[in-house]
Amino acid sequence: MSVTSPAGFRAAGVTAGLKASGKPDLALVVNDGPLAVAAGVFTSNRVVAAPVVWSRAVVGDGVARAVVLNSGGANACTGAEGFADTHRTAEHTAAALGVDPGDLLVCSTGLIGERLPMDTLLAGVDDAVAHLSETGGDDAATAIMTTDSVSKTSHVAGEGWSVGGIAKGAGMLAPGLATMLVVITTDAVIDAGRADAALRGATATTFDRVDSDGCMSTNDTVLLLASGASGVEPAPGELEDALTRVSADLARQLVADAEGASHDIAVTVENATSEEAAVAVARAVTRSNLFKAAVFGNDPNWGRVLAAVGTVPPEVAPYDALELDVAINGVQVCRAGGVGEDRSLVDLAAHREVQVTIDLHAGGASATVWTNDLTHDYVHENSAYST
Amino acid sequence: MSVTSPAGFRAAGVTAGLKASGKPDLALVVNDGPLAVAAGVFTSNRVVAAPVVWSRAVVGDGVARAVVLNSGGANACTGAEGFADTHRTAEHTAAALGVDPGDLLVCSTGLIGERLPMDTLLAGVDDAVAHLSETGGDDAATAIMTTDSVSKTSHVAGEGWSVGGIAKGAGMLAPGLATMLVVITTDAVIDAGRADAALRGATATTFDRVDSDGCMSTNDTVLLLASGASGVEPAPGELEDALTRVSADLARQLVADAEGASHDIAVTVENATSEEAAVAVARAVTRSNLFKAAVFGNDPNWGRVLAAVGTVPPEVAPYDALELDVAINGVQVCRAGGVGEDRSLVDLAAHREVQVTIDLHAGGASATVWTNDLTHDYVHENSAYST
Repeated sequence: MSVTSPAGFRAAGVTAGLKASGKPDLALVVNDGPLAVAAGVFTSNRVVAAPVVWSRAVVGDGVARAVVLNSGGANACTGAEGFADTHRTAEHTAAALGVDPGDLLVCSTGLIGERLPMDTLLAGVDDAVAHLSETGGDDAATAIMTTDSVSKTSHVAGEGWSVGGIAKGAGMLAPGLATMLVVITTDAVIDAGRADAALRGATATTFDRVDSDGCMSTNDTVLLLASGASGVEPAPGELEDALTRVSADLARQLVADAEGASHDIAVTVENATSEEAAVAVARAVTRSNLFKAAVFGNDPNWGRVLAAVGTVPPEVAPYDALELDVAINGVQVCRAGGVGEDRSLVDLAAHREVQVTIDLHAGGASATVWTNDLTHDYVHENSAYST
Repeated sequence: MSVTSPAGFRAAGVTAGLKASGKPDLALVVNDGPLAVAAGVFTSNRVVAAPVVWSRAVVGDGVARAVVLNSGGANACTGAEGFADTHRTAEHTAAALGVDPGDLLVCSTGLIGERLPMDTLLAGVDDAVAHLSETGGDDAATAIMTTDSVSKTSHVAGEGWSVGGIAKGAGMLAPGLATMLVVITTDAVIDAGRADAALRGATATTFDRVDSDGCMSTNDTVLLLASGASGVEPAPGELEDALTRVSADLARQLVADAEGASHDIAVTVENATSEEAAVAVARAVTRSNLFKAAVFGNDPNWGRVLAAVGTVPPEVAPYDALELDVAINGVQVCRAGGVGEDRSLVDLAAHREVQVTIDLHAGGASATVWTNDLTHDYVHENSAYST
């Protein structure tokens, strides 16, 4: 159940030969309509890959017919030649599908600073077009994997319509998105304005609140394609809710499969003066290498939580350091900025999931940001990635 | 050659028994005058340890007679009881030395969130007082070590006067200082105003530009004590220059001994619109786990440098992403935001030191921030620290 579960979509995933491993590396998702509504959210990095520049322009008019995605190369920091490669990929794919190249979205993921082998890639596109099917979503999910250990798919059904999605992303997960490629489809009848607003709303509280290693990618892209094939226009809030559920499900799968992680950590900040303040404090904790390494060692080191909370400027998140409470997996290890319950009551080894709750006692807003522990395997995977 | 090299100082380092390892854990540095000038720079963390609160108040009038430092416990997040412990430490030490408790500085380092065993600590103070000597600086440097593998000392001589220092700090090195305890002494004749200005100037371009793991400590303290025992008042700039050289030397030693590091990385940003912009861009690169893990793998992954540079907001550091140049150890691996010289020309395995130079082509300012690679040993040391 993924991008081809909603009506009006075909997909494929094939092995073009971009990856040295010989694993699938090229995916195609086609919207057969009748609508061709599209929306996109992209990395906020100032250094962006060629396909991001291209796709941001393509989706500007709210219309797209298909998206072609490759792993095995990010096509980032590749200059004018790299942009020409993306352009050529869009033109070649559009011609094969009989659509306008200006309605063809492109996504890439892999090593930065290397040109893509275009002959190999374009032959892969032809192969993918030949393999398009109404059950091809899972193959597409597999073909966009990089260091992912499992493919990620999701699906939520409405009454007569549904939302489906695929995602990849195992490192570089970060705010402003990650090396996260996500394609979400729906057969609901919506216009471009609703698609755009729904997608921005859904990403703001899901993909944007995943921070695996604090690193922001040059290639992050989350796309929504709507075919209207169900003929059903969901009531206000219904499509938005389903889209948020699919996004949250995929985001949670990304965290669970982050490079080398042995714990998933939910950092919840309560009683902040605003949601932004809560996110800022949670983000500071999710970026503390010291705290994340402690969790890897199954050490409920709440002092490192407080040290991270203390780095957030008071104008961003007002609180009194002598009122801070911290609970780890329900044990109140820190009370009023000092020692609380015995830390030995926290058994981190027993569960993959770790719940850190920080009470600021400053207001009524709250937020949760997800991250992972910092492990030997993270270091290993990221030191060996390109060599 | 350390804190007891300048005239007018005695020091000691003893084993009080605060560390399970049985290694030295209590240090004392005494200024015998005739001057008792002091200045201090402290962590900018909002969650601060009791000794930071105490010492910040003590140094407020520019006068201090001695500093007592313990490893084996940070006395942070220990509430009112923890502050009372610091107060009692100052009173006990001051009484043993025959000085005012209000002129007694206190520093602590170790695990956060645990009370110090006060009987053990105060007995250690008595022992340290008994062992004070004019050659005790090296013992003091040893007694403040935590996960440091070597003690850090430095000395720079002027004409008839000198500056000496000791430092500890192997993890949590970060902007706004680190779990860095530094004591610098001089026998130059200076007043409190000059001491304060000189210390702030020296730390701004040395300790403040070391960022090992982006984590900011609750206990960071850099102290300057001036005895005036040389009778010499250095010409304008001379004392400041010597202080900066001692600070830079100690900061460099901290980087070289950071937890688990196998490479020291100097990130230099050139042709920025301002020094602040250069520091912000350099800081972003020194905080990229992905880049730091790549360096551990001896992989000159300049794409991860650009991805980090791209996270700095344009209002902080204006530049055009298509004009960025990056050199690693002198090899111009990225030109104009795209592929430059062959990355295989960079041999990171041959040298511990890595020089990353980023040219923003935006102005005339530059700055260097030091960091380390992210290694298996970092993860190991920080996951096993408290257990």
